[in-house]
Amino acid sequence: MNFQPTPDDHFTFGLWTVGWQGRDPFGDATRAPLDPTETVRRLAELGAYGVTFHDDDLVPFGSSDAERATHVKRFRQALDATGMKVPMVTTNLFTHPVFKDGAFTANDRDVRRYALRKTLRNIDLAVDLGARTFVAWGGREGAESGAAKDVRAALDRLKEAFDLLGQYVLDQGYDLRFAVEPKPNEPRGDILLPTVGHALAFIDRLEHPELVGVNPEVGHEQMAGLNFPHGVAQALWSGKLFHIDLNGQSGIKYDQDLRFGAGDVRQAFWLVDLLESANWAGPRHFDFKPPRTEDTDGVWASAAGCMRNYLILKERAAAFRADPEVREALRAARLDQLATPTLAPGETLDDLLADRSSFEDFDVTAAARRGMAFERLDQLAMDHLLGARG
Amino acid sequence: MNFQPTPDDHFTFGLWTVGWQGRDPFGDATRAPLDPTETVRRLAELGAYGVTFHDDDLVPFGSSDAERATHVKRFRQALDATGMKVPMVTTNLFTHPVFKDGAFTANDRDVRRYALRKTLRNIDLAVDLGARTFVAWGGREGAESGAAKDVRAALDRLKEAFDLLGQYVLDQGYDLRFAVEPKPNEPRGDILLPTVGHALAFIDRLEHPELVGVNPEVGHEQMAGLNFPHGVAQALWSGKLFHIDLNGQSGIKYDQDLRFGAGDVRQAFWLVDLLESANWAGPRHFDFKPPRTEDTDGVWASAAGCMRNYLILKERAAAFRADPEVREALRAARLDQLATPTLAPGETLDDLLADRSSFEDFDVTAAARRGMAFERLDQLAMDHLLGARG
Amino acid sequence: MNFQPTPDDHFTFGLWTVGWQGRDPFGDATRAPLDPTETVRRLAELGAYGVTFHDDDLVPFGSSDAERATHVKRFRQALDATGMKVPMVTTNLFTHPVFKDGAFTANDRDVRRYALRKTLRNIDLAVDLGARTFVAWGGREGAESGAAKDVRAALDRLKEAFDLLGQYVLDQGYDLRFAVEPKPNEPRGDILLPTVGHALAFIDRLEHPELVGVNPEVGHEQMAGLNFPHGVAQALWSGKLFHIDLNGQSGIKYDQDLRFGAGDVRQAFWLVDLLESANWAGPRHFDFKPPRTEDTDGVWASAAGCMRNYLILKERAAAFRADPEVREALRAARLDQLATPTLAPGETLDDLLADRSSFEDFDVTAAARRGMAFERLDQLAMDHLLGARG
Amino acid sequence: MNFQPTPDDHFTFGLWTVGWQGRDPFGDATRAPLDPTETVRRLAELGAYGVTFHDDDLVPFGSSDAERATHVKRFRQALDATGMKVPMVTTNLFTHPVFKDGAFTANDRDVRRYALRKTLRNIDLAVDLGARTFVAWGGREGAESGAAKDVRAALDRLKEAFDLLGQYVLDQGYDLRFAVEPKPNEPRGDILLPTVGHALAFIDRLEHPELVGVNPEVGHEQMAGLNFPHGVAQALWSGKLFHIDLNGQSGIKYDQDLRFGAGDVRQAFWLVDLLESANWAGPRHFDFKPPRTEDTDGVWASAAGCMRNYLILKERAAAFRADPEVREALRAARLDQLATPTLAPGETLDDLLADRSSFEDFDVTAAARRGMAFERLDQLAMDHLLGARG
Repeated sequence: MNFQPTPDDHFTFGLWTVGWQGRDPFGDATRAPLDPTETVRRLAELGAYGVTFHDDDLVPFGSSDAERATHVKRFRQALDATGMKVPMVTTNLFTHPVFKDGAFTANDRDVRRYALRKTLRNIDLAVDLGARTFVAWGGREGAESGAAKDVRAALDRLKEAFDLLGQYVLDQGYDLRFAVEPKPNEPRGDILLPTVGHALAFIDRLEHPELVGVNPEVGHEQMAGLNFPHGVAQALWSGKLFHIDLNGQSGIKYDQDLRFGAGDVRQAFWLVDLLESANWAGPRHFDFKPPRTEDTDGVWASAAGCMRNYLILKERAAAFRADPEVREALRAARLDQLATPTLAPGETLDDLLADRSSFEDFDVTAAARRGMAFERLDQLAMDHLLGARG
Repeated sequence: MNFQPTPDDHFTFGLWTVGWQGRDPFGDATRAPLDPTETVRRLAELGAYGVTFHDDDLVPFGSSDAERATHVKRFRQALDATGMKVPMVTTNLFTHPVFKDGAFTANDRDVRRYALRKTLRNIDLAVDLGARTFVAWGGREGAESGAAKDVRAALDRLKEAFDLLGQYVLDQGYDLRFAVEPKPNEPRGDILLPTVGHALAFIDRLEHPELVGVNPEVGHEQMAGLNFPHGVAQALWSGKLFHIDLNGQSGIKYDQDLRFGAGDVRQAFWLVDLLESANWAGPRHFDFKPPRTEDTDGVWASAAGCMRNYLILKERAAAFRADPEVREALRAARLDQLATPTLAPGETLDDLLADRSSFEDFDVTAAARRGMAFERLDQLAMDHLLGARG
Repeated sequence: MNFQPTPDDHFTFGLWTVGWQGRDPFGDATRAPLDPTETVRRLAELGAYGVTFHDDDLVPFGSSDAERATHVKRFRQALDATGMKVPMVTTNLFTHPVFKDGAFTANDRDVRRYALRKTLRNIDLAVDLGARTFVAWGGREGAESGAAKDVRAALDRLKEAFDLLGQYVLDQGYDLRFAVEPKPNEPRGDILLPTVGHALAFIDRLEHPELVGVNPEVGHEQMAGLNFPHGVAQALWSGKLFHIDLNGQSGIKYDQDLRFGAGDVRQAFWLVDLLESANWAGPRHFDFKPPRTEDTDGVWASAAGCMRNYLILKERAAAFRADPEVREALRAARLDQLATPTLAPGETLDDLLADRSSFEDFDVTAAARRGMAFERLDQLAMDHLLGARG
Repeated sequence: MNFQPTPDDHFTFGLWTVGWQGRDPFGDATRAPLDPTETVRRLAELGAYGVTFHDDDLVPFGSSDAERATHVKRFRQALDATGMKVPMVTTNLFTHPVFKDGAFTANDRDVRRYALRKTLRNIDLAVDLGARTFVAWGGREGAESGAAKDVRAALDRLKEAFDLLGQYVLDQGYDLRFAVEPKPNEPRGDILLPTVGHALAFIDRLEHPELVGVNPEVGHEQMAGLNFPHGVAQALWSGKLFHIDLNGQSGIKYDQDLRFGAGDVRQAFWLVDLLESANWAGPRHFDFKPPRTEDTDGVWASAAGCMRNYLILKERAAAFRADPEVREALRAARLDQLATPTLAPGETLDDLLADRSSFEDFDVTAAARRGMAFERLDQLAMDHLLGARG
């Protein structure tokens, strides 16, 4: 077993992840800032494929145009030197106090206009650096109290924003798609588009829905107690999994951003199984925060752990799917029947209504007595996860 | 102040609500069964507008055709005698053990066919009794373990089912719409379409999406820690609020089905404010369970409390919206600006990009300094809720 | 109805509450610092009784002895000028990065010694300013991963610390008691002494348990989904409610610190009912954070709202308890029987065993049939809460 | 690796676990009843050490004395035939509707007397069958609404009950201890003694606290979002871990009672590590429910899985503790310092106050800079859990 990552694994990290200084609601920073170029070099050494960033991660808020150019140039040199890619870019619309009531749905119209401009400017940079995905996390789009936000009006504004951004990308001829990142709460009491489902439904009502998908984050769905692999499966089923944020979370509480594999490792296993079974082509992007107890060595250990855990789980999921006893157990649990349409080829509603075996003559008691054999199947999965087979 | 309900208030109750006998996972029934005709009469006396039911609430599972006809006839007589309506009907696809692994997404194909037939038969009855809405709660469509359900295949089967049901309604020329009721978990470890958002996104992928909307239930969204009025607002915004289930829930735990108003009364206030502000036309349907500590008197007290609380909150919400100080506070919180498009009439993306006041010359520090005045607004709402104004 | 607070209401506020600048995990400060003397003056004007503080709220971390003296002197002058009291003081053992792994239970022994010294110094100041209660919130005493903290060893260290602090107070002859403030998580993944119950059990194992009680905070218990009034009732029952932190929380999520009354207003009602019914003598202390959307005006509106809501709820609870119909409903729900011992005066176990009416002849079916009449009682409470009686 | 259980592993199961028929709030039974003697035989074959039961599991409620004697005799014969033990017995005070408002804290005094008599009778049977532990789960001791239960009066009644039960055991000279089982909610909205902490604090206030400890259940603490190994560690630290209920739970939701290892397998790992490191001597008792999707074969597969998972985790925890690199990592994370008292042997408070190195000369900045190396340690644990070392 070799769990050493290589660029072929397509692992990517946000600059803000390993670069998090450890400031939390009750404590000051515990670590010095990391230079983005240093991040690029260290992640390349660890076997990553690329990095991602918010505009303000790369170019500090308030920089002059000249400073901006310098920051971008140094970053580009680091990319060139290491071969690291930038598959995704995103905009920071939450740190500055001007966004305290939101960005695209701020009650203040001038803040909304400013947020659009900040985003448009960053889209140009994203394309310039070769990104094909633009993530939009609306962390401040929400409220703590009932009258403060008219949700229907806010959704109008959010649609207006995404319609404009989509138009811009089309006008410019950019090869760029958007990925909306849902989150239920924190930093707002309730955030708009709180889950993968809400985001998918919102996207369907845009002018250019084909340009927009979702960027589910493990911890965000788990903060609502939802099954993350289930949500990702619905996104895949909808053709809308445009990006993914991998991390760990220990249940319904504040946003923990643990390294991938920490938290609910069984859901992590099923997630990797799903992504690999679906041959999903996007980068495996880690959006985590090394705990503030760690120094810089701990930061890199944590980043390495994210990739290692993915590779371990990938090996285990593959072994699970290849195991003949598992295949037999899946049949015993009638997964093959689930994959078969309920109506036979060519069967009509009238045929179904006329089929007495489906209702009038159906032995419901006998059918009810059949066991589903799920516990045996799940124990086989547990054995594979824990490396305890054979 | 008079909080006596009348049929004009359009309050409806499920037969299974007041009829719940109090069987729970740890205890036996504490109340005798209620005859549906008795329920119709008592609810009519209390001022309700109508009743709703699952097929098996009205006609016990396994009844012969003759027994079925008798049950329906007696029920119809009670409706006629009281003037009570049946605006909604639904199918029980969860109580019988044959549905232990689901109905439309059961791994067993013959169970899926049986579930479709049971539903189609019930649609005929629904239409016959004048219902215009058919609710579908897929409480058993889910799993407790990862390999037991291939979610993408299950969504294929779920779509197949709704496409067939929609086709049936069209073929028959029925004036009936479907309302999907989401729930995150219980009785399954994780249920498919766990939130309003997931249901809306699913509906968008059906053959006849126009026939299908959602039936959000207060407690179901709150079991995921979600803001219920926010979810309902997105459903309204999407034109998909086809029905609603009103009850109470004390946070993230087992499904409590408390009477409306119990649990989170502040969210109940904002919900009533939203439904009334939106002039939503559907019935106010209570899907609650009188606690098993209650005898029959307690059952009717609990049902009366549901309606009374709605009427109290309706009065308070109206007073809140009519209060000149509230109107001023809403302006101070810039709700009027939120209702205004971000781009001016006729303004283009190029115009926005050329508007230096929106970015280059925008005084972000000054803008950040503006307070939103939400606390004052929320305290006004609290005063109105508690009847403590003036 | 007059809901204007006066010092007789014994409302107190932490300097850190109105003084919170709005820095959160995803955003920078939105408000300028407040001078503690300004806070004292403004709160006095609003009708408060006193203020409380962490050492570092009053004297910035790292101040020289001379600076410290100046800060304390100015503060004392403000107290004298306004008549405001300081009933409670606490130590900041969480903001500085040195406490990133805890204070009294940090793995690093020198950090633990430093934390003890910081606390001992602050105890002297507390007594000097007339405080009778010293709160201890161990927000950093915890872990994010399993091996990082040996919980039994950590509890040994925590006991060692409280035993030392108790000894110090006894040695000095101080009239000061400690109040442990539990919290389940945030900023650590899991915090030691996560609930009121765990803290009470810990206290029982100290050398001087009589010196130590609890300081429950509304939101902290609700972050674990627990019923706050129930926890406070157990603390009162144990003679251990030494202080209380009043605020609001909307369910299981990050620590919101909403103003009192916001969040779960029904639990707030039952809390006020409990504190007032028990004639609890301590100050009503608000530990909240005005949302970062607010400017300074909003901060004071939020603080005023805390007091106003307490007074409204106090009036409503008194009316509830005085209402003859409520008294009758309480009897109908047999609350009087709950207050009566299960064994009669002088009755022994042998008597009970010999009483055939208690078991052999007990009509369990008839007893099971009795309704508890709780729904009627709870609706009366709702009517009183909403001011909808009569 | 051999994960076959033997009686030396001291695995025990409740009759009600494998015997659960699958009745849930939304569905009827999916399995036939199991004869207790069959359960004894099958569990013995699987390698279990013993069984436990509620009175009504063994002797159906309402049996005559003669029927009771027959049931007990057959059960005893099965025990004798298999060598299975009965280390624990408990009373069912929740299924019959007479207990709908509680047993020891029911508002109705006659219900409380009946509950005491039912319990006393069952204590005699427990001792007769050789049990040394008597578990008390007060699942119905609680409320759904605020005025329905005066919590302080209810705690008086609960103390009265445990004082009487303790007196009985002392009077009879029984070698039996009680273990209180906490749970936060379900089937009541809020249950008294909701967590391990609350139960420990309650026990400290009994007449004979030495007779009473706790019986923590994995899922019950996790339903409050609490770290289960942390709670068990505090119980051990308090000398109060008298029994334990092992199962699985997927976060904060309804009580799932999954097989041990399912749900949060990382907490399961740390739990086994704790119990084994502490050389805890009690039986490893499984209180789980095979999902209602399973037939009888699935029931036994599920039971076998509980034991297998414990043995796998036990092997992994032992390997973790024995690994030299782990030992080094524990030192790097300063767990050795945590185990060392904060004051030196013989050091006094005055010595500490005089030690300038502890405060005045302490280099807080340098100390803050030290990394805790927890991520490396946790990844080693993950590697051991997943069998991915070496």
